[in-house]
Amino acid sequence: MFFASDNAGPAHPSVMNRVIAANAAHQMPYGKDTIMDEVTARIREVFEAPDAAVYLVATGTAANVLALACYTQPWQTMFCSAVAHIEQDECNAPEFYASGAKLTLIPTDDKMTPDALEAAIATQTPGNVHGAQPGPVSITQVTERGTVHSLEELRALTAVAKAHGCPVHLDGARFANAQVALGCSAADMTWKSGVDVVSFGGTKNGCLGVEAVVFFDPAKAWEFELRRKRGAHLFSKHRYLSAQMAGYLENNAFLDIARTANANAMRLADGLRAAGAQFLHEPDANMIFARFPRAVHKKLHDAGARYYLWDGPLEGPADELVAARLVCDWSITTDQIDTFLSHF
Amino acid sequence: MFFASDNAGPAHPSVMNRVIAANAAHQMPYGKDTIMDEVTARIREVFEAPDAAVYLVATGTAANVLALACYTQPWQTMFCSAVAHIEQDECNAPEFYASGAKLTLIPTDDKMTPDALEAAIATQTPGNVHGAQPGPVSITQVTERGTVHSLEELRALTAVAKAHGCPVHLDGARFANAQVALGCSAADMTWKSGVDVVSFGGTKNGCLGVEAVVFFDPAKAWEFELRRKRGAHLFSKHRYLSAQMAGYLENNAFLDIARTANANAMRLADGLRAAGAQFLHEPDANMIFARFPRAVHKKLHDAGARYYLWDGPLEGPADELVAARLVCDWSITTDQIDTFLSHF
Amino acid sequence: MFFASDNAGPAHPSVMNRVIAANAAHQMPYGKDTIMDEVTARIREVFEAPDAAVYLVATGTAANVLALACYTQPWQTMFCSAVAHIEQDECNAPEFYASGAKLTLIPTDDKMTPDALEAAIATQTPGNVHGAQPGPVSITQVTERGTVHSLEELRALTAVAKAHGCPVHLDGARFANAQVALGCSAADMTWKSGVDVVSFGGTKNGCLGVEAVVFFDPAKAWEFELRRKRGAHLFSKHRYLSAQMAGYLENNAFLDIARTANANAMRLADGLRAAGAQFLHEPDANMIFARFPRAVHKKLHDAGARYYLWDGPLEGPADELVAARLVCDWSITTDQIDTFLSHF
Amino acid sequence: MFFASDNAGPAHPSVMNRVIAANAAHQMPYGKDTIMDEVTARIREVFEAPDAAVYLVATGTAANVLALACYTQPWQTMFCSAVAHIEQDECNAPEFYASGAKLTLIPTDDKMTPDALEAAIATQTPGNVHGAQPGPVSITQVTERGTVHSLEELRALTAVAKAHGCPVHLDGARFANAQVALGCSAADMTWKSGVDVVSFGGTKNGCLGVEAVVFFDPAKAWEFELRRKRGAHLFSKHRYLSAQMAGYLENNAFLDIARTANANAMRLADGLRAAGAQFLHEPDANMIFARFPRAVHKKLHDAGARYYLWDGPLEGPADELVAARLVCDWSITTDQIDTFLSHF
Repeated sequence: MFFASDNAGPAHPSVMNRVIAANAAHQMPYGKDTIMDEVTARIREVFEAPDAAVYLVATGTAANVLALACYTQPWQTMFCSAVAHIEQDECNAPEFYASGAKLTLIPTDDKMTPDALEAAIATQTPGNVHGAQPGPVSITQVTERGTVHSLEELRALTAVAKAHGCPVHLDGARFANAQVALGCSAADMTWKSGVDVVSFGGTKNGCLGVEAVVFFDPAKAWEFELRRKRGAHLFSKHRYLSAQMAGYLENNAFLDIARTANANAMRLADGLRAAGAQFLHEPDANMIFARFPRAVHKKLHDAGARYYLWDGPLEGPADELVAARLVCDWSITTDQIDTFLSHF
Repeated sequence: MFFASDNAGPAHPSVMNRVIAANAAHQMPYGKDTIMDEVTARIREVFEAPDAAVYLVATGTAANVLALACYTQPWQTMFCSAVAHIEQDECNAPEFYASGAKLTLIPTDDKMTPDALEAAIATQTPGNVHGAQPGPVSITQVTERGTVHSLEELRALTAVAKAHGCPVHLDGARFANAQVALGCSAADMTWKSGVDVVSFGGTKNGCLGVEAVVFFDPAKAWEFELRRKRGAHLFSKHRYLSAQMAGYLENNAFLDIARTANANAMRLADGLRAAGAQFLHEPDANMIFARFPRAVHKKLHDAGARYYLWDGPLEGPADELVAARLVCDWSITTDQIDTFLSHF
Repeated sequence: MFFASDNAGPAHPSVMNRVIAANAAHQMPYGKDTIMDEVTARIREVFEAPDAAVYLVATGTAANVLALACYTQPWQTMFCSAVAHIEQDECNAPEFYASGAKLTLIPTDDKMTPDALEAAIATQTPGNVHGAQPGPVSITQVTERGTVHSLEELRALTAVAKAHGCPVHLDGARFANAQVALGCSAADMTWKSGVDVVSFGGTKNGCLGVEAVVFFDPAKAWEFELRRKRGAHLFSKHRYLSAQMAGYLENNAFLDIARTANANAMRLADGLRAAGAQFLHEPDANMIFARFPRAVHKKLHDAGARYYLWDGPLEGPADELVAARLVCDWSITTDQIDTFLSHF
Repeated sequence: MFFASDNAGPAHPSVMNRVIAANAAHQMPYGKDTIMDEVTARIREVFEAPDAAVYLVATGTAANVLALACYTQPWQTMFCSAVAHIEQDECNAPEFYASGAKLTLIPTDDKMTPDALEAAIATQTPGNVHGAQPGPVSITQVTERGTVHSLEELRALTAVAKAHGCPVHLDGARFANAQVALGCSAADMTWKSGVDVVSFGGTKNGCLGVEAVVFFDPAKAWEFELRRKRGAHLFSKHRYLSAQMAGYLENNAFLDIARTANANAMRLADGLRAAGAQFLHEPDANMIFARFPRAVHKKLHDAGARYYLWDGPLEGPADELVAARLVCDWSITTDQIDTFLSHF
């Protein structure tokens, strides 16, 4: 009953098997491996973007900050939700990689609204040398609160960005979970909706540690390569990144894995709802924020269930509500979910 | 006949098997996995350093630059050989991670001499605010030219560093190859010889992509953790780094793998010597720099042998000497070596 | 009728005369001039801090960001008011000088409250490697809105900072204006109230361009010298900075100049109040934010009055209120103020 | 008898008088002062460059590093002489302002030769992601050793740079001294010889503290403004920089001042030569490196002469030669020079 994070489960066989298969013979290092050629072609196909520049790195933070750095001058500010991963969970890596640029936070506990984004950009004073200059907008999909922007919502945000000349980055650490939730194409959720560069996550969705950065404008390719190397993120035995991503994309495994994870979360959410739990955010993908009585939480904890308590201490009145974050990956079984629910 | 680099061969079974085994059940992310506990204990044992702080990253450049950054203020300069990897092959990553510090190059085509290091440090003017202040000394072992510092040589260099108050970093991308060449202990080659922090390489010696950074002074631990995270080098599914390193250290596999690689290189070197090749540097470990006639080089190339031509173009008089860099990893077979030599 | 800023008037004779006097004979460069000895002694006397480390730079931004950088690690965040100069008017210089650290903004349109500061620091998670670590707190005195923290208010803020182990910086671009407003000593407003380092402004209060950075803990001295040099802020002909500051401090000229500026502003504020103007912030020093009818504003503008319109466009209904920022320096005459007021 | 540096003497009356005159009435801050309009027009005239972008800063290091940063990506290296001010005397400011770029040193104790520059650039591997990429070339004129590149020498260096696509920066801390030494125009020594941006020094040649950065390609203008502000080098009371530069340029005062300084140095050099002193470098402008017996040095020192001992300790055999650096500014009198020489 491990619901703490989707970064704690095993890699999916479709991924692992390609890694094992890659461990034969010699391959050129530093991204010149033949598997990477397959990956590039496949990502261009998946994204319907024949000119896209495609690169692999091993961590989600690396994907985000390298992508953003290619669109951010040191005297600019990047716009993001106040709860964005790049703000809360990357220990100043965005500022480091962008040579000391700033983040401007859009006040929200989940999605940015277009109005709030507009207000944040509008308070900037481009051309005034005293203030930070407007830089890129970063949107997270699935959000840090488990919700998914509809294509309409995405486009409303990117329209605001574009109106101010701001490029758009999509933090897609849970890209596939969002895509299957929306039932749209990868292109729909990116360049067809105004996204310039995407962090296309693999790690949380069944890989060992790989993320693709996809630039729809290949003009950024060389700068990205230099930034990746300078950031110490260019793998010599790159084949093992390529192999993960190749297995992940093969036969749309990434969508199947995400579908399983989302279905797990929906089964859990349905059970929680039936048991009277309240949701802090309506779950759209594989992540649930729910309130239930402390007494239930203690029973779950004693039974070995693992998840983050979002709000409220372990000790206190038994009938008081606490809040929990529950994340499902593909490897959670329905049995585990049902056992979990049986404690309510 | 792939002699281009030791980063192009497959991972060793002792490493790969642990990665496969790690792909079961759930593990806490971000270095809190139980396999990392094993790794830390084992590295402390290997280095006879019960208090050492031990961390894993995925690339050799990350290990070097994060280790050095912990010992370098932005207004300092790091001392290294003019041919050091940190100077020639890391695209300004050391300067990036050290917030704009400088490298001072010791003129040499291979090892630094203590006199040359002394001269370089002595030209600095600590306490003079106009110049860069002296920072750490970085020594590469095995060197970029395939030679190995004796313990006496190492200690002569660290003595110079210590006399000036400069901490010492060892770039051990090929640490195990050097250790078996010297027949010494890991402790001998590090803290017993005046080394403060070591990049203990795994990738080039049979891993997929993992390096340990070992601080003999644990006071640097927390700073390293913050720098690693801020550099986007903290893996969420850290278990896959831990598993590689665990397999690498188990039963001293790292030494066995290096012994095989070095033996391969010695077989090749002996054959080359017998065939009349000249050596640019006397090979000590698993890397050879040799001169032989262009005609031989062309035959080898046509036969599918792969290695870097170090000096001299492909075309030219048949009897003119060209220089080649030949690197052996554990996976090169004696058959391949003998076939290679048969073209002389 | 120039009320646009206190950086637009001439230097005060007490300052200018020392600059002219300094232009004789030779002086050692880079802060080794004899006038600097006088300045250091005098600042220690003024601040009742015999061990203070004292340095001069030429701009307020340089003073702020060099002082803050000495207390900020790259993975930390600095806390300040959302309207602080370091946030709004320094084009990412704080982030640049602190090697990519972050700013955390306390929501307010003027002073931070201790509760809001506490809330901002409390949301940080020191020891959690994913988030920025808490760094220094920067307080502005006189605030950007023309108000002055009482000593009680200052101490309540620094108490919050100290409780979390955060060092405290005071942005005193208008230090003297605040000091005369409070009628306290320089020590009262700094180290006796928990301030660790102060940007002691000269430029806005009658100098040509000089600010002192005063560290009450001299342990930061050498780091500051290196950061100043590396930031290209160490003057070769430093005597001209020293001379300004010497004249500024002589016979407490800095307090007299500020007293004049504040008195000018009070005369203006009294007149505005009598004329029915509303204040956005109650003016405490030499800066006024007032609303009055657009018709009056147009008359003033046509009469040659200069100031920033804070809110509301030039064109619109004549009786609608606009907001203006009016700043007085020592050189504004009572005649100019009275002429200005005559247009109401 | 102050020959220690040309940054230790007083400002020239032509400069000082404009500063005093500027201290009247109000002026717009941050470079919007009317005096700056005059300066821009005059510099364009002096450099015969009607489109040049012109900016003022207060220190030579600021001029150099801001100019270079506009032409340097963080993954590039800047080429300069091993004895360049940007290498030896700026405490890593070039690396700081260029976000961690590197310097590649051309081995020389004075001028770079075109061959040595070619060799240094040719060892770079543009397009190879592992190494630093070639960036700008910085040439110092007058050199740090008191010699002046002829226009032919300058053009030979810039031709090498241009052949590799490297932009060219001229560190002209002693620009006027070089210009009068060559008897050429400012345009001859800059854009007509392939220079893209120049640090046009004022401080060492009779100003209080002002340098102009002149871009012959105005496309860099806005980036420079942002970098200057972010570096904390934009003066609020900018008029005092403008006034210095205005006085410096008026009636070609800068050339007259330099002519005096150079003539002083020539008188001193002639006397030294007559007295049997040897020159380490043939003096071309206002700086002399000469060897003479330690006994003479001691007599001079006891007589109050001040200069840097370049080589050799104060104590030792009386007839042993020591080396001294002797710098003349405009304010040295012929009497002082003759008194100095009388000790030989």
